[in-house]
Amino acid sequence: MHAYRSHTCAQLTKADVGQTVRLSGWVHRVRDHGGVLFIDLRDHYGVTQILADGDSPAFAEVEKVRSEWVIRIEGTVKARDESLINPKLPTGEIEVYIRDLTVLGAAEELPLPVFGDQEYPEETRLAYRFLDLRRESLHNNIMLRSHVIKSMRDRMWDSGFTEFQTPIITASSPEGARDFLVPSRLHPGKFYALPQAPQQFKQLIMVAGFDRYFQIAPCFRDEDPRADRSPTDFYQLDVEMSFVEQQDVFDAVQPVIQGVFEEFGNGRKVDQHWPQIAYRDAALWYGSDKPDLRNPIKMQDVSEHFRGSGFAIFAKLLETEGNEIRAIPAPTGGSRKFCDRMNAFAQQQGLPGMGYIFWREGADGIEAAGPLAKNIGPERTEAIRQQLGLGKGDAAFFLGGKPKVFEPVAGRARNVIGEELGLTDKDRFAFAWVVDFPIYEKDEETGEIDFEHNPFSMPQGGLEALEGDPLEVKGYQYDLACNGYEILSGAIRNHRPEIMFKAFEIAGYGHDEVEKRFGGMVKAFRYGAPPHGGCAAGIDRIVMLLADTANIREVIMFPMNQRAEDLMMDAPSNPTNEQLRELGLRVVPRED
Amino acid sequence: MHAYRSHTCAQLTKADVGQTVRLSGWVHRVRDHGGVLFIDLRDHYGVTQILADGDSPAFAEVEKVRSEWVIRIEGTVKARDESLINPKLPTGEIEVYIRDLTVLGAAEELPLPVFGDQEYPEETRLAYRFLDLRRESLHNNIMLRSHVIKSMRDRMWDSGFTEFQTPIITASSPEGARDFLVPSRLHPGKFYALPQAPQQFKQLIMVAGFDRYFQIAPCFRDEDPRADRSPTDFYQLDVEMSFVEQQDVFDAVQPVIQGVFEEFGNGRKVDQHWPQIAYRDAALWYGSDKPDLRNPIKMQDVSEHFRGSGFAIFAKLLETEGNEIRAIPAPTGGSRKFCDRMNAFAQQQGLPGMGYIFWREGADGIEAAGPLAKNIGPERTEAIRQQLGLGKGDAAFFLGGKPKVFEPVAGRARNVIGEELGLTDKDRFAFAWVVDFPIYEKDEETGEIDFEHNPFSMPQGGLEALEGDPLEVKGYQYDLACNGYEILSGAIRNHRPEIMFKAFEIAGYGHDEVEKRFGGMVKAFRYGAPPHGGCAAGIDRIVMLLADTANIREVIMFPMNQRAEDLMMDAPSNPTNEQLRELGLRVVPRED
Repeated sequence: MHAYRSHTCAQLTKADVGQTVRLSGWVHRVRDHGGVLFIDLRDHYGVTQILADGDSPAFAEVEKVRSEWVIRIEGTVKARDESLINPKLPTGEIEVYIRDLTVLGAAEELPLPVFGDQEYPEETRLAYRFLDLRRESLHNNIMLRSHVIKSMRDRMWDSGFTEFQTPIITASSPEGARDFLVPSRLHPGKFYALPQAPQQFKQLIMVAGFDRYFQIAPCFRDEDPRADRSPTDFYQLDVEMSFVEQQDVFDAVQPVIQGVFEEFGNGRKVDQHWPQIAYRDAALWYGSDKPDLRNPIKMQDVSEHFRGSGFAIFAKLLETEGNEIRAIPAPTGGSRKFCDRMNAFAQQQGLPGMGYIFWREGADGIEAAGPLAKNIGPERTEAIRQQLGLGKGDAAFFLGGKPKVFEPVAGRARNVIGEELGLTDKDRFAFAWVVDFPIYEKDEETGEIDFEHNPFSMPQGGLEALEGDPLEVKGYQYDLACNGYEILSGAIRNHRPEIMFKAFEIAGYGHDEVEKRFGGMVKAFRYGAPPHGGCAAGIDRIVMLLADTANIREVIMFPMNQRAEDLMMDAPSNPTNEQLRELGLRVVPRED
Repeated sequence: MHAYRSHTCAQLTKADVGQTVRLSGWVHRVRDHGGVLFIDLRDHYGVTQILADGDSPAFAEVEKVRSEWVIRIEGTVKARDESLINPKLPTGEIEVYIRDLTVLGAAEELPLPVFGDQEYPEETRLAYRFLDLRRESLHNNIMLRSHVIKSMRDRMWDSGFTEFQTPIITASSPEGARDFLVPSRLHPGKFYALPQAPQQFKQLIMVAGFDRYFQIAPCFRDEDPRADRSPTDFYQLDVEMSFVEQQDVFDAVQPVIQGVFEEFGNGRKVDQHWPQIAYRDAALWYGSDKPDLRNPIKMQDVSEHFRGSGFAIFAKLLETEGNEIRAIPAPTGGSRKFCDRMNAFAQQQGLPGMGYIFWREGADGIEAAGPLAKNIGPERTEAIRQQLGLGKGDAAFFLGGKPKVFEPVAGRARNVIGEELGLTDKDRFAFAWVVDFPIYEKDEETGEIDFEHNPFSMPQGGLEALEGDPLEVKGYQYDLACNGYEILSGAIRNHRPEIMFKAFEIAGYGHDEVEKRFGGMVKAFRYGAPPHGGCAAGIDRIVMLLADTANIREVIMFPMNQRAEDLMMDAPSNPTNEQLRELGLRVVPRED
């Protein structure tokens, strides 16, 4: 017999009754039923019930064991009494009558129980991560993550992509965030950087002629802590293709992502149709560039109904160029109580409030209510109702001003309305491609033009488009939103040096600076670069959606805490003087 | 039709004759056959011949293109004349008569040609890696690497292992090499380290109850440059299993490694039987702890034949305790010329020389020749011949002294003899498990006892064995050698805190230091640790063996040069003052 186990703790069934078996695992729980001891013995695969009575030669040993001890037992498989069968367990029809017990690894008093669902402070959970990971839900999340990544990988290979590894100790990459630096010992005073993303390398792989690249790629950004992201490293499904247009990337990626959600969605609906929504429309309709399409509410421009109307605030606003009035339709939201609550929500969000109209049963059928309706009169009110396609029992909310200013609040109000009215289907994954992103944005304070996203996207219209108003230039640049989260981002790249230099010039980067910062890639583009494009999908985020958790630490085996510390391994820590000397570095107090 | 291609450059066959097609790719070669221009158009998948004559509307454009331009062409598929068919190419029976050409990416004068096999200095190749990667052999090596890794991964999943990612920005790991450090911005003056291997994490994964882990893991060691290793990062197939003994690890790993060699060995023989050789026997028989079993030569202890013999040097040596005389049998090496050359080889290697005997046709049949034979006389000579199983036409070489001193040279001599005599089968992968490694070694200079390998192995015999002579303690610790290279290393781990503290104590590490350096893991072992063990296989080395190259830069997409510089991306480079300020660091001149 094997030194530790003849079976795992999930294997034995009624067919094994009478067999002598050996099992190893953790003591999940010990119960004393008046002289009969039961142990739930747990391993990675499952749980098997072990039983000892006073006649068992191992009884005295069994009495000593405690929760989370690792033991090996030998015994005989017995059928459980009919009344004791547990149909939820694969091993629920049997138990093992123990004859021998060996302690393989004892456990001290636990700082964190494994059995049970009791909540524990996160710092304790992280310091004793090896115990926390034994708990069922975290264990399952980590297994889910592994299977999701395997599935992505298999799907990518099956679609004709090849996985290549790109360097991890490398040069600074210009993704807009802060690099983690690595001091060089062989070149004291110089530093490597960990890649924020393999952006330049994957483009170089295309220039090198490899055609279809992917990588489950670790990415490193020294960003300030946030609950839903890792403060150090995260993983993306990184993709790049040669000789493609935007639609080719979509066609390659959708089956992979959709397939993963279908495989691991646990019965939740997965949308087959992924609409393509222009960035500007996403802002108008959803108040967000990562719209949640599970929520059917679509906002609309209703400015014309308020222009010169009796509602002076909006009428006045509309006299200023660029201002608009937008409506958030709220089907089934037609009660004053609900409308007031939403108005209060807008005020919490820093707006003066949201005007509203709601429609109710009136003397002659439908009747519009709310102060706004009175101010603009029945004709305009009815025109709004018709435009929004609302009826009795519904409501609409109104926001006015500069869209850029109120859009974020409108977007959040849309979310809250959708949730509160039960319009948002929680058991569904809804996707939207957001396309036609502007290449540039204007810094509101300095008035300077800078890249909206990474600087490597091809402008729609090429060099010619760059001659006009930069803020009007759209890129072949796209995001994929799922349930209100951005889960993927990508672009067709700018592979022509002359267009690239022009694009950088507009953002204020001179020829020399481009050569200096992106020299490797620009040089490569001068020696026969193919048109290419791709994307990167956030793996941690996708697993979080599938695991239905908002905390990234629930889907990573050994996460840092929010101060970027590893409490279990004690990182970061003080270097030795010898290490600093070798690297030619001295620690100095910060001046701030 | 697709914007860039209706087919790849490897797709068109005779069945497509008459079709209008669109292809995109690199101009591999242009040939002018007297007014008829031929382009070999190349992409990732293959090459297609494009043809333009004076009647083609694209002729003038075709005349302009140069090597490595990226172009898109349209034309008609034609069958080649019988005499022009190239049976080596999948597309060798057709060519495309071009009607339209668009330049997608022009190329400047090339610093490095893609077509042809001309050698170029490595610095040029690394600076223009994107061009070098277009060359067929490097392109194939990189694809081989990707397929090897995919195959390993699939085989591991199929064997019931799960892949988990472990942290990359983490704490120092005590693997004996130098860490790469990463300064922390949020905790100025403190540093993270990049993992030399996920050793502690994979053991923690076992303690956390996951049972069978693997990872294609990036590992980071700040080591001094060497031709056959990357100066920064390398990849290993990292494996760990719970509730196993040494043989279980072997049984799990052999099918994976053997399968990979069979799949990618390109017809070379792959040994099915992997002998287990004790560390001491490997030293005796092969002069190496990574024996090359393609070479049938097995060295032997022949001390008894020289004790008190007429060969004074050896007889004298044997008077000192611990000295030995060993023989390297050399079947078919029985000529004075060969023996003298091998003797000269030993002298080059810093030894006084190797004595030898060879056997030739003599008056009464077999006759022993060489000075050694005369000195010890015919009886002893014959006894040696019989022990070594040699005959007419064979030779044997002799080395004497302290085995530790001459073993490395003996091992190299064995290699040279095997190669020169054609005994070593080059078309074969031969494997050997080397087992029973000593846990400790003695520093010859200081006399101090330290760990021979990483300190986490379980001593054979447990706590009791540690009470005796430490240098006699063997570990459940093993290597796998293939063709003379170590390709895998592993151990059954020491999971019992009390044995661990004792083992460290012997190597001079006090209780507190162990707690400080390995606190995370030691703590974990106190809360129910299973017996566990595993190994790590060197992926770069395995790909090098399969690709039959001795240069690691031939199997990595974007390698550093031997001074740990990335010549293409310019790394390492100078940090900005702002970066140093944020990290609380100052660069100081080194004192050396």
